[in-house]
Amino acid sequence: MPAASTSTAVSATGRGGNLRDWARAAYAAVREETERRVAPLSDEDQLIQSMADASPAKWHRAHTTWFFEQFLLVPQVPGYEPFDERFAFLFNSYYVSAGPRHERPRRGLITRPTVAEVGRYRAHVDAAMARLLAEADEATLDAIAPVIEIGLNHEQQHQELMLTDILHGFAHNPTDPVYAAAWRLPAPVGGDAVKVPGGIYRIGHEGQGFSFDNEAPNHQVLIHPVAIGPLITNGEWLAFMQAGGYRDPLLWLSDGWATVQREGWDAPGYWRQVDGRWFQMTLAGMQPIDPAAAVCHVSYYEADAYARFAGKDLPTEQEWEVAVAGGLPDAFGIVWQWTRSAYGAYPGYRPVPGALGEYNGKFMVNQLVLRGSSVATPDGHERLTYRNFFYPHHRWQFTGLRLTEYAR
Amino acid sequence: MPAASTSTAVSATGRGGNLRDWARAAYAAVREETERRVAPLSDEDQLIQSMADASPAKWHRAHTTWFFEQFLLVPQVPGYEPFDERFAFLFNSYYVSAGPRHERPRRGLITRPTVAEVGRYRAHVDAAMARLLAEADEATLDAIAPVIEIGLNHEQQHQELMLTDILHGFAHNPTDPVYAAAWRLPAPVGGDAVKVPGGIYRIGHEGQGFSFDNEAPNHQVLIHPVAIGPLITNGEWLAFMQAGGYRDPLLWLSDGWATVQREGWDAPGYWRQVDGRWFQMTLAGMQPIDPAAAVCHVSYYEADAYARFAGKDLPTEQEWEVAVAGGLPDAFGIVWQWTRSAYGAYPGYRPVPGALGEYNGKFMVNQLVLRGSSVATPDGHERLTYRNFFYPHHRWQFTGLRLTEYAR
Amino acid sequence: MPAASTSTAVSATGRGGNLRDWARAAYAAVREETERRVAPLSDEDQLIQSMADASPAKWHRAHTTWFFEQFLLVPQVPGYEPFDERFAFLFNSYYVSAGPRHERPRRGLITRPTVAEVGRYRAHVDAAMARLLAEADEATLDAIAPVIEIGLNHEQQHQELMLTDILHGFAHNPTDPVYAAAWRLPAPVGGDAVKVPGGIYRIGHEGQGFSFDNEAPNHQVLIHPVAIGPLITNGEWLAFMQAGGYRDPLLWLSDGWATVQREGWDAPGYWRQVDGRWFQMTLAGMQPIDPAAAVCHVSYYEADAYARFAGKDLPTEQEWEVAVAGGLPDAFGIVWQWTRSAYGAYPGYRPVPGALGEYNGKFMVNQLVLRGSSVATPDGHERLTYRNFFYPHHRWQFTGLRLTEYAR
Amino acid sequence: MPAASTSTAVSATGRGGNLRDWARAAYAAVREETERRVAPLSDEDQLIQSMADASPAKWHRAHTTWFFEQFLLVPQVPGYEPFDERFAFLFNSYYVSAGPRHERPRRGLITRPTVAEVGRYRAHVDAAMARLLAEADEATLDAIAPVIEIGLNHEQQHQELMLTDILHGFAHNPTDPVYAAAWRLPAPVGGDAVKVPGGIYRIGHEGQGFSFDNEAPNHQVLIHPVAIGPLITNGEWLAFMQAGGYRDPLLWLSDGWATVQREGWDAPGYWRQVDGRWFQMTLAGMQPIDPAAAVCHVSYYEADAYARFAGKDLPTEQEWEVAVAGGLPDAFGIVWQWTRSAYGAYPGYRPVPGALGEYNGKFMVNQLVLRGSSVATPDGHERLTYRNFFYPHHRWQFTGLRLTEYAR
Ligand SMILES: [Fe+3]
Ligand SMILES: [Fe+3]
Ligand SMILES: [Fe+3]
Ligand SMILES: [Fe+3]
Repeated sequence: MPAASTSTAVSATGRGGNLRDWARAAYAAVREETERRVAPLSDEDQLIQSMADASPAKWHRAHTTWFFEQFLLVPQVPGYEPFDERFAFLFNSYYVSAGPRHERPRRGLITRPTVAEVGRYRAHVDAAMARLLAEADEATLDAIAPVIEIGLNHEQQHQELMLTDILHGFAHNPTDPVYAAAWRLPAPVGGDAVKVPGGIYRIGHEGQGFSFDNEAPNHQVLIHPVAIGPLITNGEWLAFMQAGGYRDPLLWLSDGWATVQREGWDAPGYWRQVDGRWFQMTLAGMQPIDPAAAVCHVSYYEADAYARFAGKDLPTEQEWEVAVAGGLPDAFGIVWQWTRSAYGAYPGYRPVPGALGEYNGKFMVNQLVLRGSSVATPDGHERLTYRNFFYPHHRWQFTGLRLTEYAR
Repeated sequence: MPAASTSTAVSATGRGGNLRDWARAAYAAVREETERRVAPLSDEDQLIQSMADASPAKWHRAHTTWFFEQFLLVPQVPGYEPFDERFAFLFNSYYVSAGPRHERPRRGLITRPTVAEVGRYRAHVDAAMARLLAEADEATLDAIAPVIEIGLNHEQQHQELMLTDILHGFAHNPTDPVYAAAWRLPAPVGGDAVKVPGGIYRIGHEGQGFSFDNEAPNHQVLIHPVAIGPLITNGEWLAFMQAGGYRDPLLWLSDGWATVQREGWDAPGYWRQVDGRWFQMTLAGMQPIDPAAAVCHVSYYEADAYARFAGKDLPTEQEWEVAVAGGLPDAFGIVWQWTRSAYGAYPGYRPVPGALGEYNGKFMVNQLVLRGSSVATPDGHERLTYRNFFYPHHRWQFTGLRLTEYAR
Repeated sequence: MPAASTSTAVSATGRGGNLRDWARAAYAAVREETERRVAPLSDEDQLIQSMADASPAKWHRAHTTWFFEQFLLVPQVPGYEPFDERFAFLFNSYYVSAGPRHERPRRGLITRPTVAEVGRYRAHVDAAMARLLAEADEATLDAIAPVIEIGLNHEQQHQELMLTDILHGFAHNPTDPVYAAAWRLPAPVGGDAVKVPGGIYRIGHEGQGFSFDNEAPNHQVLIHPVAIGPLITNGEWLAFMQAGGYRDPLLWLSDGWATVQREGWDAPGYWRQVDGRWFQMTLAGMQPIDPAAAVCHVSYYEADAYARFAGKDLPTEQEWEVAVAGGLPDAFGIVWQWTRSAYGAYPGYRPVPGALGEYNGKFMVNQLVLRGSSVATPDGHERLTYRNFFYPHHRWQFTGLRLTEYAR
Repeated sequence: MPAASTSTAVSATGRGGNLRDWARAAYAAVREETERRVAPLSDEDQLIQSMADASPAKWHRAHTTWFFEQFLLVPQVPGYEPFDERFAFLFNSYYVSAGPRHERPRRGLITRPTVAEVGRYRAHVDAAMARLLAEADEATLDAIAPVIEIGLNHEQQHQELMLTDILHGFAHNPTDPVYAAAWRLPAPVGGDAVKVPGGIYRIGHEGQGFSFDNEAPNHQVLIHPVAIGPLITNGEWLAFMQAGGYRDPLLWLSDGWATVQREGWDAPGYWRQVDGRWFQMTLAGMQPIDPAAAVCHVSYYEADAYARFAGKDLPTEQEWEVAVAGGLPDAFGIVWQWTRSAYGAYPGYRPVPGALGEYNGKFMVNQLVLRGSSVATPDGHERLTYRNFFYPHHRWQFTGLRLTEYAR
C-alpha cells in the first residue's frame, strides 16, 4: 500500500504504564484482526490478484509477517533463523533497501507457499515475537517499541487493503460472491456545512503517540474562510448522473475525461444497472443503491467533476484537518474523503533514514491526499492528522467526498 | 486448446462388439485420467492462470465437464437440469454458437465455484452420463456415440494442456515447485535419417476410427525425394547456442528475430543457467540438462533458426506423415515435432456444421502444424494423421523438432 | 516491402543483342517512372509516414537509390565516394548484413536530407551509374547485369508501395486529397469459372528471364480438380455486407474476428458511408463505389470470411498459377489476389548467399501469398510465377480475391 | 500547450493612451515574431510531429490564426467567411466547446493544407484583423481588447512551443540539424542563496495588466523561513551523475525511478556521450556541455532526485514568487524552474465561463508548476505571477531548477 496511517489502540506512546504488557496486547490484537478478516475466505480466494494494484490476501498475511521477521526478529534475536530464506524475496513489497523483490503483478501466481504454510509462517513469527516480548530487557523493549508500533500500524494498513482487494477480485466474478452477508456501509449523520474562520492554525502530528513520518512536522498554515459540507450521498450522485454528468466533457479534468472514455465509466465503481435499477457490488454481494448512504468508490476525477457540477470545491487537506479538529462529523469510519491537495512533503519534512524511511516519501508525486478513514479501516487506526493517498483514477478503495465553499 | 487429436483406446469405432460397454469403459477411463493428473495439485495450484494462453486446472476440469452437459445431457436427457445455470457462461471456451463466454484471460480470478464445487459438478455430470449410457436404447446409443467420442477426445486434449499449463504456472514461482518428482522425458532412440522416395502418396484420415475434422479428407499428395532425420537433442542445441545461434539475426525469420529481442530469449523455454550449468524447469522441478534427451520447449522460430543453422529444412507435414507411415521412430510420446506447414485446410475440407464444427476450422491461419505426440499426451490419443497447431512463438508445449534434406 | 517480383521490360535476360544498350535503357526507364509517380506530390506529401508499415515517398526514392550505390557503385567503381556517408544508415531498410539502420517507424521524421537533396542524390547516383554503364568492359557488364536487374526490380516494387503508402497517408487527411483526378481501377472482364483438371503440373520460375529467388525452384505439384472463378466485385461484397457478413463471428477465422472487433471494420479499407451511400477513398479522392468494379483493399481475413460466406475456397497459389497459365483472365493489372497459401519455401529453396539473399527468405512465416499484380504495379513487372506476400490483416495494398470450388 | 502566461509588451492594460494604436502594434509584433521563428524551417521541417505532446510548426501557425478567426472575426465581423470551413476541425486544439477536433497525435500527417496555404491563411486573417482594428468603433475596441490580448498571449505561448517542438523533432534526426547556428543558453549570474523571512505575503495576479485566469485570485500565503539558491548548473549535474545519481533508486520518487528504467535515462534530455565527452543537442545542433551553464531539459523526476541527493528541497511556487518579488536573480529568460507545487487552483479560483475558460482549469491535476521563463519565451511574455505546468516526466521544454533550505 501507498502508506496511510494509524491509531491509539495500538499506540505504544498512549500506554499508561507497562510497555511489555502494552506490546504483547497490541501485537496479539492486531495479528488476530488480520486472521479474523481472512476467515471468510477459501484458500483459492486468498490467492487471487485481480489487478497489479491489488494483492492476494495470502500475500498480505505473509508480507506483514515478513515485516516483523525482517525488522525485529532478524536484527534483535541472536541466532534467529528465518522461517524460509525465500520469503524475503517473495514477500518484500517495495523496500529497495531490503533487497530484491518478486514482481508485484505476479503475486497471484504464487500457489506455493500455500495458505497453510503461510499460516505456519505467521505462527512461527508470532511465537518468536512472543518470546522476544517476554524475554527482552527494558532497554531492548524501549528500543524496539517504535518498530513494533510501526509494524502493527503497517499491518493495519494491509488489513484495510485485504478488504478492498478481495472486493475487487470478487467483483470480477460473474457469480457475485459474498464476503459477509451482513456487511453495510455506516449511515452518515449529514448536517449543514461547517464554517471555518480564516486565520493561522497548526496542523500535522505533534509528536504525542504514533504517526507516520509524512504527518510531520506540525506546522502553521493559513486558512481562508471556508464552509465545509457533509458527505455526498448516493442520492446526490444519482442526480449528477441523471444530469448527464458522465457525458459532459466540460465538467471534467482533461485527464479525467480521457479516463472516463477509456474505461467507459458511467457510474461509481462497482455500480451496475439491472432492469433500470442501480446496484453496487459490495462485501455483502450485489446490493441495491441506498440514496441516503454516502457515495463510495468514486475516483478523484469523479469527485472533481462532481465539485464542478455543484459549483464548489473539494477541500484542501489543511481545511479538512482544521474543520475536523473543530468538530466536523462523519470524518471517520464511513469513507475516505478526497481532498484537492496533491500528496507532498510538509515544509521541513525529511524521511526517516533507512529502509523504514522509504515508506512514504517516495510516493510524493501524482497522488492526491485522502483524509479521515473508512468502514474498512481497523478500529483505532484512524487519526486526525492521517494522510492517505491514491492516484486520481483509483476507486477500488472506500472513497467518497465532501465539498467546500469559500466565503465571499 | 487449439484443437488437436485422438486415439484408439477411446475410439468408438475401434470397439469390437458392444457399443454400450465401450462407451461406459471409455468414459470412465478418460474421466479418471483427468482426476489422476490433478491429484498432485492443491486448490490454489488449480486456480492459477499464468498467461492468457493457459487455463487453470480447475477450469480444464469444469470446461470438459460442461462439454458433456451441453452437447449430450441437455439435448438427450429429458428434464435434465444443468448443475448450475451460470457454468455455461463460465466454462464455455470458444464455441460462439453456444452463447456468450467469460473472458479468457480472467479465468484465474474465478475462485468460486471452488475446487470442491467443481468436483461435485464432475460427479453430478458423471452420474447423469452413467444413467444415460445405462438407459439409452440402441438407436440413441448409435446417435450419441460420435459425440461421446469427440467429448472424450476433447477431454484428452485438455489433459495435455493441464500439464503444460501447470508447468508454465510453476515456472513463474521462484520456489520451483515439483509436480511429480519422478517425471522425466522419455529418451529418443535416435538413428539415421530415413529416406522417403518421391511419388504420390495418400495422407489424411481414411474414416476408420475417430479423427478430428481437420484430418480429412484423405487425399493424394506429391512427395519430393527427401531424407528425414531423428529428433534434435539438447546436446545439438547446446552446440547451436555456443555457436551464437541466438545472437545472429541472419539465422532467423524476421518475425522470429523480433521475438528473440523482445523476449530476451537465449535458450529454449524454461532453461536457466546457474553457475555456468544449464538447467530446465520441468514437472520434476529444476533438472540439469541431459545432452542425450530431445530438445523440448522450443518455438517454431527457434526450430526454423536451427534448421537454417544446420543448412537443412523442417519437414512438411505431408513428408512427416509419409515417413512415419513408413517407420520413422520417435514420432510419438516424446515431443511434438514442428513442421514447416502452415495450418490450413486439406483440399475439399469443410467444417462439421453446428457448434462442434467451430472446433478446428477457425484457427486455420497464423499457426504451424506439429505432428506426433508428446510425453504429456494421454495414452491412446496419438494418431498418424493427427494435426496439432500452435503459433510460431509458442513454446510452453512439449515441442521439439527433426530436420530433412532433399535429395540432390 | 515484403518483397514481391518483376518483369520482362527490364529483364536483362530478355534482351536481344546488346547488354549495354539494354542496361542503359532499362535503368533510365525505371528511374524515370519513380520520378513520374512522385510528380504530383509536394515536399510535405513526400515526408509523411502514416503507419510503421508504410514509408515516405522521399524515403522510397532515396532507399532505391542507395541500393545502386551500395551494391553497384561502391563495389564496382574504384574511388567512388558515397554521396553522403550518413545515407547508408538512413536509407538501408532491412539488410542486416549491410549494417545498422534507422528505425523504420521514424522515417517520417527525417526532414533533412530534404526532398531537394534526395533529388540531388538520385542525380548523383544516376550520373555515376551512367558512367559505369558507359565505361564498363564486357566482362564487368556481364557480372553486374544481374545486380542491375535486381536493383531495377527492387525499385519497381517500391514504385507500387509509393502509391499504396501515399494513399494510406492521404486517407488520414480529413480533406481527402487527390493524387490524380483521373485515376480509376481497371474494369474486370469477369466471366465464368475456369476448370482446372487434376494432375501433375510444374510451377515456379524456370530460369528464363528475371525472377526473385522465392519463385524457384521450378517443381512438380499435384493439383486436385478445381474450378476457379472471376474477381469478386463490389456488388457482391455489398451483398455480403448486407447479409451481416461483418457481424457474424461464425464466418470468420478466430484471429480475423478479433481484428474486426479491435479495428471496428464494417467494410473494406477506405470505404466510408455518407448519407447511406458508400464511397471509397482512392488516388482520385473520395469516389462512389462502383458495383461492377473488383473489390479492392480487403484483407486476407475478409477474403477468407467471404469465401466461407460463399461456401467456397480461396485458391492455393499452385491452383492459381496453373489456372492462369491455362488462360484465366483478369490475373494482372487490377488487384492482387489473395491465395490461401501461407508464404513459405518451395521444396529445395535456398536463399541467395549475401545481403541480397536476405530479401525474401526471412519473411517466410505468418504471411499469405498474393498472386497476379495490381493497377499500381509498374508495366512489365508482373509475372506468372511472382509471389507477393502480406500479413493477413493488411489491406492498404490493392488487394482483392477470386474463389474456387473443388469438383465433386 | 498546457497554458502558461504573458507579457507587458502586448498588454492592452499597459497601454498609455490609444487602444487602437496599441492593438495594431501588438498584433503586428506578435504575428511577425511567429514568422521570424519559422523562417529557418523548410516546408518539411514545418510538418513533423515527433511525439503526441509536440505539434508541427505549421500547425502552430494555423492554430494560433484559427484562434483569432474563431474568437474574433467570426463573432465580430458581420458576413465574415472563414478562410476554409475545414480548418476549424483541423486546427482547434482542445476547446471542446468549439466543436470536434482532429486527433492530436496525427497532426504530422496533414500535408494539406500546405505550408504555403497556411501562409495564405495567416495573411487572410491578418488582413481581416487589420480591417477590424481599423474600422471598429471605440465601444467595440473596448469589448474585443481582452480577446485580442488573450489571443496574442496564446500565440506567444505557441511561439515557445515551436522552438521546443522543432528541437524535439531535430533530435530524432541522426544528422543533427541546426536551427540557428548562433543559438546559446544565456549564462546565469549565480550567486548565493537568498533568504526569505517567514510571514504572510500576497501572491497571484492583482488585476493590473494581462494575466491568465489561473494566476488569480491574488491571495495571502504563509511562508516559512527559507533560503532559495541559484540555478543548478551542468557542472553540478555532472557531479550528480558521477556520484551514480541515475543508478540509485533511493534517490528517486517511485514513479520517477520507473520512468528512469523504462526510458533508460542516464543524463538530462538531449545529452549524448561521444568518446567520453558529453554533448547536448540544441537549436545550434550538437554542442559540448558547458559546466557553467544552467542545466536544461531535466524532468521534475530528475529535479526531485537532485534535491534529495543535495539534501535540500525544490521551492514551492509561493516561495519562488515571494523570493523573486524580493530580487532573486536569473528568474527569467534562461530556464523554467520546477517547483514542488502541484498545479492546482488558488483559493477561490473559478474558470472564465465559455470556451476560453477551458484554457487552464482543466489541466489542474498530475502536473507540476514551473515558474519564471526560458530563453525560448518571447520578450515581454514573462511575468512574476506566471504559472507554467507540465507533467513530471516532461523534459523537452527548457527546464531547470534551483533548491531551497528551510531555516532551522
Ligand atoms: Fe506493506
Ligand atoms: Fe476445449
Ligand atoms: Fe527495399
Ligand atoms: Fe493553443
